[in-house]
Amino acid sequence: MRKSIVLLTVAASFAAVASAADRPPNIVIIFADDMGYGDLGCYGHPSIRTPNLDRMASQGMRFTDFYCGASVCTPSRAALMTGRYAPRCGMASDKRRVLFPTSKGGLQADEVTIAEILKKQGYATHAIGKWHLGHLPQYLPTSHGFDTYFGIPYSNDMDRLAAKGPKGRAAFLEPRVEYWNCPLMRGTEVVERPAEQTTITRRYTEEAVKFIKQDKDRPFFIYLAHNLPHVPLFRHKEFEGRSLRGLYGDVIEEIDWSVGQVLEAIREQGLEKDTVVWFTSDNGPWLIFNDHGGSAGPLFEGKGCSWEGGQRVPGIAWGPGRIPAGRITSELASTLDFLPTAAALAGAKPPTDRTLDGYDLTAFITGKTDKSPRDRFFYYRDEAIYAVRQGPYKAHFTTRSAYGPDKPVKHDPPLLFHLGVDPGEKWNVASQHPDVVERLIKLAGEQDAGLKAPPSQLENENIK
Amino acid sequence: MRKSIVLLTVAASFAAVASAADRPPNIVIIFADDMGYGDLGCYGHPSIRTPNLDRMASQGMRFTDFYCGASVCTPSRAALMTGRYAPRCGMASDKRRVLFPTSKGGLQADEVTIAEILKKQGYATHAIGKWHLGHLPQYLPTSHGFDTYFGIPYSNDMDRLAAKGPKGRAAFLEPRVEYWNCPLMRGTEVVERPAEQTTITRRYTEEAVKFIKQDKDRPFFIYLAHNLPHVPLFRHKEFEGRSLRGLYGDVIEEIDWSVGQVLEAIREQGLEKDTVVWFTSDNGPWLIFNDHGGSAGPLFEGKGCSWEGGQRVPGIAWGPGRIPAGRITSELASTLDFLPTAAALAGAKPPTDRTLDGYDLTAFITGKTDKSPRDRFFYYRDEAIYAVRQGPYKAHFTTRSAYGPDKPVKHDPPLLFHLGVDPGEKWNVASQHPDVVERLIKLAGEQDAGLKAPPSQLENENIK
Repeated sequence: MRKSIVLLTVAASFAAVASAADRPPNIVIIFADDMGYGDLGCYGHPSIRTPNLDRMASQGMRFTDFYCGASVCTPSRAALMTGRYAPRCGMASDKRRVLFPTSKGGLQADEVTIAEILKKQGYATHAIGKWHLGHLPQYLPTSHGFDTYFGIPYSNDMDRLAAKGPKGRAAFLEPRVEYWNCPLMRGTEVVERPAEQTTITRRYTEEAVKFIKQDKDRPFFIYLAHNLPHVPLFRHKEFEGRSLRGLYGDVIEEIDWSVGQVLEAIREQGLEKDTVVWFTSDNGPWLIFNDHGGSAGPLFEGKGCSWEGGQRVPGIAWGPGRIPAGRITSELASTLDFLPTAAALAGAKPPTDRTLDGYDLTAFITGKTDKSPRDRFFYYRDEAIYAVRQGPYKAHFTTRSAYGPDKPVKHDPPLLFHLGVDPGEKWNVASQHPDVVERLIKLAGEQDAGLKAPPSQLENENIK
Repeated sequence: MRKSIVLLTVAASFAAVASAADRPPNIVIIFADDMGYGDLGCYGHPSIRTPNLDRMASQGMRFTDFYCGASVCTPSRAALMTGRYAPRCGMASDKRRVLFPTSKGGLQADEVTIAEILKKQGYATHAIGKWHLGHLPQYLPTSHGFDTYFGIPYSNDMDRLAAKGPKGRAAFLEPRVEYWNCPLMRGTEVVERPAEQTTITRRYTEEAVKFIKQDKDRPFFIYLAHNLPHVPLFRHKEFEGRSLRGLYGDVIEEIDWSVGQVLEAIREQGLEKDTVVWFTSDNGPWLIFNDHGGSAGPLFEGKGCSWEGGQRVPGIAWGPGRIPAGRITSELASTLDFLPTAAALAGAKPPTDRTLDGYDLTAFITGKTDKSPRDRFFYYRDEAIYAVRQGPYKAHFTTRSAYGPDKPVKHDPPLLFHLGVDPGEKWNVASQHPDVVERLIKLAGEQDAGLKAPPSQLENENIK
């Protein structure tokens, strides 16, 4: 009996490998909002339990040095969707850091998104969750290569109703759905307002599972961008009081549950060898919200700044048909790499008429090489390069608190940290490595000179 | 050929299960020195790789809230070895925090150690590594229930040779064996001086593996107390430059290798169902040594203080014959619990003529219950209770920097933190929970009133 099970397993495994070669894989990107580097069990959180994400990591590849494209929502999402730093797409500004409900701008039609590339290859394409790349019809997902869209068009704390709830940040401490007026959309229509956020993670999950079943016979791309754990925090009543970490932990544990549901649906449809799933976050934890914000673990600072806590986030790649299990890597990778990697997996070419900042990671994640093609990362704040990393070294040219009235502080020579020895950025080693400093200054200078930013879409608004 | 190996393995495995019921398990305690909460892969370190400890954790039980008995070496080791807080054993003092080479004191003969309990049950008992409970013959392991001893009697930075190497902390930055004069002992004899520390972790490991083979037909207790990653840092040349984390990472990765060797030897002897292995650290990371010290991950502060970073440490229990795989728990446990637990596993009774501070964890680690019998922990600094935890709440009565000239700061009312919501101890919630504050004050008062400390052995010395 035992012997026959072994043989069946081997046979199944060969079959899956054969099928993996026949068709391009489904691609699923699960994107959390403001989840910090240290918020998952497999990234060391002491009191949040994430068994589904931990399992996903152990069955796939866990990145210790994975970067979102920017330290706040809109530019980070632009980078993910286009493979280009936000200033190239007009999606960054030093006046307003993200899009607001009053904004008139958004991601321009001539930008090429992951969805557009995959749609041309015959993929069904679905955007679920928070968009935040423009809420006017011409900017919504259905204008950018997605067949369907179900979600909120900007952050869940926008459209606050001034007349309701406590003033200032107090409303966030005991959040209620009715304090906000954020719309929930299907396609280009508002279908619910205010969005009922206690059930929203669950409904996003059901939508994803629906498409996994519906599109099982053709390749699909699902972009599942949860609008939590961005404040205000909401979770389904089944998750109330579930976590030792309190409300924030409940929210993370519901997202972990959601990941489990998605992977389970993929398995149930027999698609686990034909699917690649990424999990990551749009930026670091929003620390000014105290226990309603997450944790950057051993990293310094959080959302909104160019310290590691602002841009280094959990990063997990899963795909039993292609991605070997059980690897942990400290090679660099970024949401910027999703577009070239998705294109390669789908057998498509990324656009050649513009500069991309992403790298094709397929050889790396499939285990053909131990080295990531990415050896560098640029930390933009708005339109300026505040810091650059190459290999283990990171130079800070400018530092600035994530939030608050303080001004940028220029560093000449730059601060230099060895992120392998010093992930917490505590010990400036610039004076010991003038050669490295010089190399990083040159690298940032070249990047800066090569980037021609169009007018920013983020300034194109009526500020209230 | 392959088939016969499989059959042999199955046969060996059945034999082991049968034998598990027949005999008490071997007990191995692997104890690191100054390793921080955040220094292992499975506790979230970004650039240190610990595949053996990660595997040990996934095959066993990983504790997120595991406490060493004190925040510095000597009292922590006294607590582990006796199941009693150090002041009860005369092994704490507010004059000198640990024993020094000039000390005349040590663990008293009337204390009952884990080794004594297990020896009476027929165990072979071996102490390997750092002792630090008295270096005069009457205090050494062989006077406290161990059949054999091989190791250094106090910390690896003691017996510094003033005439050699750079002055002050500079000697630690590029440590050489000859800057120190620490003895290596076998039994009560010095066999090497200075101890050759680049090979010491490897030699401790070989000693442990030797006893696993030699004593395979009777129960054994091995206390393998590495003297690293305490500064000065040394590692075998095979580990030079191995870790992205630099020298400190090399040292941790060699200890991880050592854990792998010990577990492999247990497996090779067919003893994996008959053995329980603990892994933990004697206190938090020594942060004043910068990148030569470890990381407390998301916890605040390190070695020497009563903040979580000083006393919460990695804690892993492994024992495939008894301990179910894959559990992560935030229930409380401590090195204080090793003695009652070891006694229970060996079918012995712990001493009843004195107060023990440890709890028998056997029902908990074997999965018979989800609840740890430990609901409280007292954070002693020297002879005083600085803080107390019960359930998720921790009250600080006194806080003080780990090192430096500053004085203790009293808090009345105490600071109160919810360690589930706030493992980093950032947000004092005393004013919201006066009932909890009152309960914790009472609990600490009862503990304090119940502890009659004998004269301290740590003051019994000629200070140089």
